[in-house]
Amino acid sequence: MLTLALESSAKAASAAVFEGDKMLAFAIQNAGLTHSRTLLPMAEGLVKGLDKTMRDIGLVAVSRGPGSFTGLRIGLAEAKGLCWALDIPAVGVSTLEAMAWGGPVLDGQMLCCCMDARRGQVYNALFTVEGGVPVRLTEDRAISIAELESELIARQEPWILLGDGAQLCYNTLDRGQVTVFTAPEPLRLQNARGVGLAALGKTPVSAHELLPVYLRLSQAERERLARMETQ
Amino acid sequence: MLTLALESSAKAASAAVFEGDKMLAFAIQNAGLTHSRTLLPMAEGLVKGLDKTMRDIGLVAVSRGPGSFTGLRIGLAEAKGLCWALDIPAVGVSTLEAMAWGGPVLDGQMLCCCMDARRGQVYNALFTVEGGVPVRLTEDRAISIAELESELIARQEPWILLGDGAQLCYNTLDRGQVTVFTAPEPLRLQNARGVGLAALGKTPVSAHELLPVYLRLSQAERERLARMETQ
Repeated sequence: MLTLALESSAKAASAAVFEGDKMLAFAIQNAGLTHSRTLLPMAEGLVKGLDKTMRDIGLVAVSRGPGSFTGLRIGLAEAKGLCWALDIPAVGVSTLEAMAWGGPVLDGQMLCCCMDARRGQVYNALFTVEGGVPVRLTEDRAISIAELESELIARQEPWILLGDGAQLCYNTLDRGQVTVFTAPEPLRLQNARGVGLAALGKTPVSAHELLPVYLRLSQAERERLARMETQ
Repeated sequence: MLTLALESSAKAASAAVFEGDKMLAFAIQNAGLTHSRTLLPMAEGLVKGLDKTMRDIGLVAVSRGPGSFTGLRIGLAEAKGLCWALDIPAVGVSTLEAMAWGGPVLDGQMLCCCMDARRGQVYNALFTVEGGVPVRLTEDRAISIAELESELIARQEPWILLGDGAQLCYNTLDRGQVTVFTAPEPLRLQNARGVGLAALGKTPVSAHELLPVYLRLSQAERERLARMETQ
């Protein structure tokens, strides 16, 4: 039984096929094309290239957020479609936790997972690595880079920055106060390998229980609330 | 103009598409299927997924060895076929140099690139990183792990092991004498991302100048020579 992992929370989109904890195939696209056109063909190509069919997939793992609202909707919608069509369950994993699993998991390393959430904020969670496995130090949250900086300084560790917000944090954080590194691109950008690894051992749910976690209201919802308050 | 990078020197096969130094798409298969069936379809899938055609490829980069004789022949034969058909040039890069480019290129890091060459030997080259770029410390060579161990100890550095021989070296080297780490899989295994990066700035050649570099005679050649010597 294969697991198909999908990641589409930011500009790049990726897919991976696992057999247990072994990744058999992986593909990523980072050309700015819409995920609704690229994600499923990429996944189909991987499965076909392994001499398998979609019927061999027994589980879909997908990043459920935080991230780009449109990107998450596409990933989750395609995951739900596959699950319904194939009558198989799914695992939704935190985009930030998947980043940690897809990163450099050497024991003792401190991982700062970040995405640009705009409006001066980042989606962030902090992890350390124990026994080759990322261990959470914080929940997923949307916080200002200044707040994040204080937390990183308080823990006095060198931090590895992961995620599509890693470069933003690297450029913005006061590097006289806190030691940070960015990981090389194949480990840094969120990817379906991390999603597949993060899903291992998690309890699958049915397709209709698979829900996005945005952490913040969408721009449309914020504007609607603002209009209602001024009425 | 796009560059198509191909890597098939060991069990895994991968392809990548670059525009200049930016990787637009990447795919890898590590399921043990023969590269002659998987490599070109994977490359075609990437190009198609980018809304491009094979006619948009202006250069083929390929790992020319050392490595599996069969794997290298498939990669080079497919590269030559593409170059002839599309009338474009190619760049053949050292498998070991491509590993270094695909690895963790933080300044000052010491990279030990290794493949299992069987018969007690590894294909190996040593690199350091300066200005984000791997710099050669040795030529590509086939040496015994004992010889490699002496060299690593003499340089008294922590070494990062790369390549499909990294785990073999990690298990065999005397880790009381030399500090070694293995990189996470996406950086460790030789891959087409490293091939594409290593090819940047190298002078292209015509398809017929693209030749494998085996570093050793094949088993068939060794046996033929042995037979001739005993005749």
